[in-house]
Amino acid sequence: MILLDGKAVSQKILERVKAKVSTLAKVPHLVVILVGDDAASRVYVNNKKKAAEKVGIKSTVIEKNAGISEEDLLTIIKDLNNDEDVTGILVQLPLPEHIDKNKIVESISPKKDVDGFTPENVGKLAIGLEPYFYPATPQGILMLLDEYKIPIEGADAVVLGRSNIVGKPMAQMLLRRNATVTICHSYTKGVEDKIKTADILISAVGKKIVRCKMVRNNSCVVDVGIFRDANGKLTGDVDFDFVSPSCGYISPVPGGVGPMTIASLMYNASKVY
Amino acid sequence: MILLDGKAVSQKILERVKAKVSTLAKVPHLVVILVGDDAASRVYVNNKKKAAEKVGIKSTVIEKNAGISEEDLLTIIKDLNNDEDVTGILVQLPLPEHIDKNKIVESISPKKDVDGFTPENVGKLAIGLEPYFYPATPQGILMLLDEYKIPIEGADAVVLGRSNIVGKPMAQMLLRRNATVTICHSYTKGVEDKIKTADILISAVGKKIVRCKMVRNNSCVVDVGIFRDANGKLTGDVDFDFVSPSCGYISPVPGGVGPMTIASLMYNASKVY
Repeated sequence: MILLDGKAVSQKILERVKAKVSTLAKVPHLVVILVGDDAASRVYVNNKKKAAEKVGIKSTVIEKNAGISEEDLLTIIKDLNNDEDVTGILVQLPLPEHIDKNKIVESISPKKDVDGFTPENVGKLAIGLEPYFYPATPQGILMLLDEYKIPIEGADAVVLGRSNIVGKPMAQMLLRRNATVTICHSYTKGVEDKIKTADILISAVGKKIVRCKMVRNNSCVVDVGIFRDANGKLTGDVDFDFVSPSCGYISPVPGGVGPMTIASLMYNASKVY
Repeated sequence: MILLDGKAVSQKILERVKAKVSTLAKVPHLVVILVGDDAASRVYVNNKKKAAEKVGIKSTVIEKNAGISEEDLLTIIKDLNNDEDVTGILVQLPLPEHIDKNKIVESISPKKDVDGFTPENVGKLAIGLEPYFYPATPQGILMLLDEYKIPIEGADAVVLGRSNIVGKPMAQMLLRRNATVTICHSYTKGVEDKIKTADILISAVGKKIVRCKMVRNNSCVVDVGIFRDANGKLTGDVDFDFVSPSCGYISPVPGGVGPMTIASLMYNASKVY
């Protein structure tokens, strides 16, 4: 069993991004919008800011209180879209309930949409065109698999979960790489049988779902889930201790997909259109 | 075995569209652009024009010779986008090689994109938002399945083929309806085993691929392929005579998906934004 060391690989990616940024005529400038005072969101935003600084990307955090109107938020984004100094815009989710998340995301210029969440970028990904940005988490996962030279073409890939952030774009990106892709979700019957067919298993569910004897021998298991167990310990979707012995490759939690997502986001933030 | 009678169902859909159109304050106006003199394209365009007339939708065919420049074609579309009388724009594919198909499709206003092929509409479909238009063929297939009350939620659906017109949007739309979806293509290994797992099989490959003993008993088989066999007879992907006895439902070729696609397109063309 080989550990997919996201921490180590992400450092390599960040080094590459840093080297690239140093050659750019224009310093990329990432603006992160943080609405409200969600503690987890604040941590994520800080991590992004720190990572940006490390690789030489200018970053600004715009903080607004939870009471901001949708209209005011749209105006801020419009101004950032028109600001030539700003090359990337990221709205930290979740947003307060009175704000239509989709409307906000759609308002970001596709050329500054470093999360790759706007309909134009998602649509280009789906059609097989080149989006300006690929969503960070699935892109980071592919970077991780590629670093370990895990064959994707022709592989049977099973994706657990169908969120817009991970599951669905992951499926699209694996399909582009010529994997045979099955997407499973809460309505899937016999999910254990499906897991068993996977050469590559991507679990992005957010609860303990992949257990002992479920995975195919020598398969590659990528654990996207991250949450705290009953003892307050960070853990993932995969029952690591029992599942890992039969895997060919497996990503740990923490230290797997998490750091890859940040590195992948910085890769996006270094793109200037 | 029950035949999925696309001819009969499409008539019902067209009647509904006609009734709806007659109540609209503004008569929908579909403009079809035909470039070059491909014989098959001409037949398709004529069928669309005839169907539009039947349901009370105004239609115009703009014919241009194969030598038209990309720029001129873009200008035509731009004018149609700005023409308030025009509610739907459809560019018949294929286009001559000197024209960038993607550029042309992307230039159509998403609100007039009756084929549902623009990145914005594809992206909205992928994200789970409401696109202005769903692609006609997969939408027509779902109309057909719904007419026969075939359960989609929780079903194991296998899609053969991953074109932008059928396979990929079909997968997205089945996923939205809570099916578990597997997409197969030329790189898929052991495609027979995958076909066998399908409660719903959608074959959109364009060659004879689904043969006797491959399908699960009582499954629902939808044949999107249409081509001429060695004897010049119209046929589909499925070896109908040998496969149909073990199916629960099966669509014939011709008379299955073909007429449903036209009806579904007219449903789209009746939408006025």
